[in-house]
Amino acid sequence: MHSFKELLKDFDSKFSVRHFPNDPATLYDSSQYILSLGGKRVRPVMCLMGNELFDDINPDAYHVATAIELFHNFSLIHDDIMDKAPLRRGMPTVHAKFGESTALLAGDVMLVMCYEYLNKINEIHRKQILSLFNKTALEVSEGQQLDMDFEKLDSVSLDEYIRMIELKTSVLLGASLKLGAIIGGASEGNVNHLYEFGKNLGIAFQIQDDYLDAFGDPDKFGKQVGGDIMANKKTFLLIHTLDVAEEQLKHELLHLMQTNPPDKVQRVLAIMKACNADAWAKEFKEKYVLQAMNHLEEIAVMSKRKEPLRELAQFLVQRDH
Amino acid sequence: MHSFKELLKDFDSKFSVRHFPNDPATLYDSSQYILSLGGKRVRPVMCLMGNELFDDINPDAYHVATAIELFHNFSLIHDDIMDKAPLRRGMPTVHAKFGESTALLAGDVMLVMCYEYLNKINEIHRKQILSLFNKTALEVSEGQQLDMDFEKLDSVSLDEYIRMIELKTSVLLGASLKLGAIIGGASEGNVNHLYEFGKNLGIAFQIQDDYLDAFGDPDKFGKQVGGDIMANKKTFLLIHTLDVAEEQLKHELLHLMQTNPPDKVQRVLAIMKACNADAWAKEFKEKYVLQAMNHLEEIAVMSKRKEPLRELAQFLVQRDH
Repeated sequence: MHSFKELLKDFDSKFSVRHFPNDPATLYDSSQYILSLGGKRVRPVMCLMGNELFDDINPDAYHVATAIELFHNFSLIHDDIMDKAPLRRGMPTVHAKFGESTALLAGDVMLVMCYEYLNKINEIHRKQILSLFNKTALEVSEGQQLDMDFEKLDSVSLDEYIRMIELKTSVLLGASLKLGAIIGGASEGNVNHLYEFGKNLGIAFQIQDDYLDAFGDPDKFGKQVGGDIMANKKTFLLIHTLDVAEEQLKHELLHLMQTNPPDKVQRVLAIMKACNADAWAKEFKEKYVLQAMNHLEEIAVMSKRKEPLRELAQFLVQRDH
Repeated sequence: MHSFKELLKDFDSKFSVRHFPNDPATLYDSSQYILSLGGKRVRPVMCLMGNELFDDINPDAYHVATAIELFHNFSLIHDDIMDKAPLRRGMPTVHAKFGESTALLAGDVMLVMCYEYLNKINEIHRKQILSLFNKTALEVSEGQQLDMDFEKLDSVSLDEYIRMIELKTSVLLGASLKLGAIIGGASEGNVNHLYEFGKNLGIAFQIQDDYLDAFGDPDKFGKQVGGDIMANKKTFLLIHTLDVAEEQLKHELLHLMQTNPPDKVQRVLAIMKACNADAWAKEFKEKYVLQAMNHLEEIAVMSKRKEPLRELAQFLVQRDH
């Protein structure tokens, strides 16, 4: 068994190669560019962990992990185009650097390369792996579409928001673990518990992310606290606050969102606190963490083998930055 | 054996279903929309023909043919975004109707659905089919990138232009036949001759297309003759004319391209004719048709079985509209 850090080092050394042909450089250098910006590589390492929970790591798990990381980067390139984002990891986004058309194609070839890596694996698992990968790829796109749809709506229910986050963020975490577990020869029951572990963890992660953006320690958070509030972004906190606030506070909150006064962030935060949204978010996150841990416990392997996944869970949802 | 028309009817009836989930409709209705605009369905039928050249049509060939047609439509959606094209088959393009972000995602899920169809086929051929499909998908994107790169260049050589057309247009025609032939159990040698037949036919088709845009009969052509000339589009005719024109004519041609006078089309046509570009294009096209037919003859099956492919070749490169 290996720790997250050990697997990360292992994956990084294998992943740090050029994944594309040389020509035309105008196309493939732009695909390779986003990979050079780094990233936490959480998803591919989760794939390796999913494999190792059940068996020694099979070389095929590296192919699948590579496909997962390429898929994640494909979605970043295309999402950044849609969001018109200028920066990614502090550097120009692909479309900002190479133009929208090339970025669009750079994403397309990245997605095709995913399938090229998936095609390398042993045929025993190929059909099942492809099927789960396809399902997940569709769901991530559905999540992105719902996110864009929600931006145009005045109000979104908490359930709808959870479903969107599940699709946009969580299913890929669940699938990363599950794809690895399939390669590791896990039973269907175990595989599904692992998927649910990852999915619930993903939702908890997003709640944490929304919480930190509003209530995080600016010194530790690394980016400006209150960015979501400034942008009127629908978050767990905002949706909950609008749900529970009394008429007057709700009216004030909506007014702040429309008028954007200079003290908007601190006044919105005060309303959120008055509605106990901070305490609610902590509890709500814990609910998902607990569900995740329950699924992890259900997996029929020796408890000791689950240690790296418990550490991963701590790392993802207990972080304060 | 079936004629192109018979296979087209057969494919169309199977393809005329919804290929996507219902929800979110904001995403999947936009993917389905472009399929509802119709199309000649040449590529999927070529896949069926490639299969039937060697054996009765295997049900898997319909899955592959469907993937090919979805891939073609995926590339149309994304190309239309890049080209900022308002119309496709006389109707609003996907991005014009649903917005660029949704169109981008609609293309992405269409590409994923290709792999969902490819994953349905028997595992004997899955790896080989996926490998050729991936290679072709990358090449088509490379061709699109080169096309965009060439737009920014003052001059492009004939060889560079042929290579771009090969990637952007021809390889998918060759691959459509080859994918079908693989399903049909053809030998490697036969499969490769069939691929070259399709690829050479594709180049001949493009030369014909460029020719008709300039010298076609307006009554038969269906769209305005001279559109390429108006837009200074690099075509076989323009590249050749710039290659062979004497200094004064070349100077005049470049001047017309820069100044866009009202009589630009007829004056450019006159220069092309003075350089015998029309006769050259016919000969140049025939060279590729001949190469295609030579590859077809090399395929070791009874000559009678090749009749539908000979008809297809006639249809594609002898048309006057």
